[in-house]
Amino acid sequence: MTTRRPKAVVLLSGGMDSCVCATLAVRDYDVALLHFDYGQRTAARERQAFVAMADHFGVRQRLVVETTFFRQIGGSALTDEHLAVPETGVDPSSIPVTYVPFRNAHFLAAGVSWAEVLGADRVVIGAVAPDSSGYPDCRPEYYAAFNALLQVGTKAGEVRVETPLLHMTKAAIVRLGLELGAPFPLSWSCYQNSTLACGRCDSCRLRRGAFAEAGAGDPIAYATGENT
Amino acid sequence: MTTRRPKAVVLLSGGMDSCVCATLAVRDYDVALLHFDYGQRTAARERQAFVAMADHFGVRQRLVVETTFFRQIGGSALTDEHLAVPETGVDPSSIPVTYVPFRNAHFLAAGVSWAEVLGADRVVIGAVAPDSSGYPDCRPEYYAAFNALLQVGTKAGEVRVETPLLHMTKAAIVRLGLELGAPFPLSWSCYQNSTLACGRCDSCRLRRGAFAEAGAGDPIAYATGENT
Repeated sequence: MTTRRPKAVVLLSGGMDSCVCATLAVRDYDVALLHFDYGQRTAARERQAFVAMADHFGVRQRLVVETTFFRQIGGSALTDEHLAVPETGVDPSSIPVTYVPFRNAHFLAAGVSWAEVLGADRVVIGAVAPDSSGYPDCRPEYYAAFNALLQVGTKAGEVRVETPLLHMTKAAIVRLGLELGAPFPLSWSCYQNSTLACGRCDSCRLRRGAFAEAGAGDPIAYATGENT
Repeated sequence: MTTRRPKAVVLLSGGMDSCVCATLAVRDYDVALLHFDYGQRTAARERQAFVAMADHFGVRQRLVVETTFFRQIGGSALTDEHLAVPETGVDPSSIPVTYVPFRNAHFLAAGVSWAEVLGADRVVIGAVAPDSSGYPDCRPEYYAAFNALLQVGTKAGEVRVETPLLHMTKAAIVRLGLELGAPFPLSWSCYQNSTLACGRCDSCRLRRGAFAEAGAGDPIAYATGENT
């Protein structure tokens, strides 16, 4: 006898966190995968990572949402080519220029809209609070407030956002991913390049630090030539 | 001496409520106008209403955001041509098929993202709770929850959503609009048509009822031939 598994919309950017998050979700849920092209520098490369992972997981239900108006709105180094991507390391006390204003609300809103149509009652996102880049929309209180909004703002009030990685360090996420067999070689984290990961932007630094701390080799190649 | 007025992002769909809302906002704030093309049936006609009103108000700072992924997501008669727009009247106890799942969250999120970049601390939306079509995202508790989200989810925690019409009946909105000289002739409410308003869809019915109750003539023409 098979039990029908609950349905979940899973946000999959293609980075290391969402890679592990989706690996977890695929184990527990009947998954629909959602990806965003928001006009970020490395959009095409990230979409390629998304497709490769969706194929790897054998998930047919997928959706790529284009919210390229972030480029019109501007204000972030990820979507505005006039602003440089910093390579100076993360200062946890301030919000970096790579912050895309209120970005995750757009992602979650799309997840919730799709979940309502699919009849899924979970939207899963691989947000990470410790080691996050200081973005306000990666904090636990943000997700608590978002779930309070969902209770009053959806048709049946039953959709809920789940954040299975929220309280994990990035090193712990790497360890969990290795345990679960997450397809890290297919993932992409670099903010800057689309061919070889730069190894120097905040996202590359956090990723490399996490693999190093976990005592594991990062299976992707870097322009700097060393992997740990 | 002139005082610098506070800056506000104002959502302007082009319907009668947002027409009055924007008229109010233009009086009190330094306004930036935001419109959405979300793949709804009457998108081109609504955009035309937006541009005409923005010209009327003399507002140069304007943005049209395209979120056509609502068509991919489906689930609403407004964005899915396989679902008919109902003409049977509004049943306040149920959510109609014209409900676009979690739509206003997308609109507000774009307003907040733009506000963060512009340095505006208000996002103004002409949502209406009484006489609303039973959409969950038009209720006062929805906006309270959204503002709670904004306190934790934005850079400085200072952006706030304002809903000046939230507790007004649609007839009261018509009266207020007439008092303020709102450009009703430029507005568009019909869900169905883009040439002559059908006069029969829920949105037309609510609008005509409001003008009738206010004892005023609706300055736009209807396919049905009568205006009250």
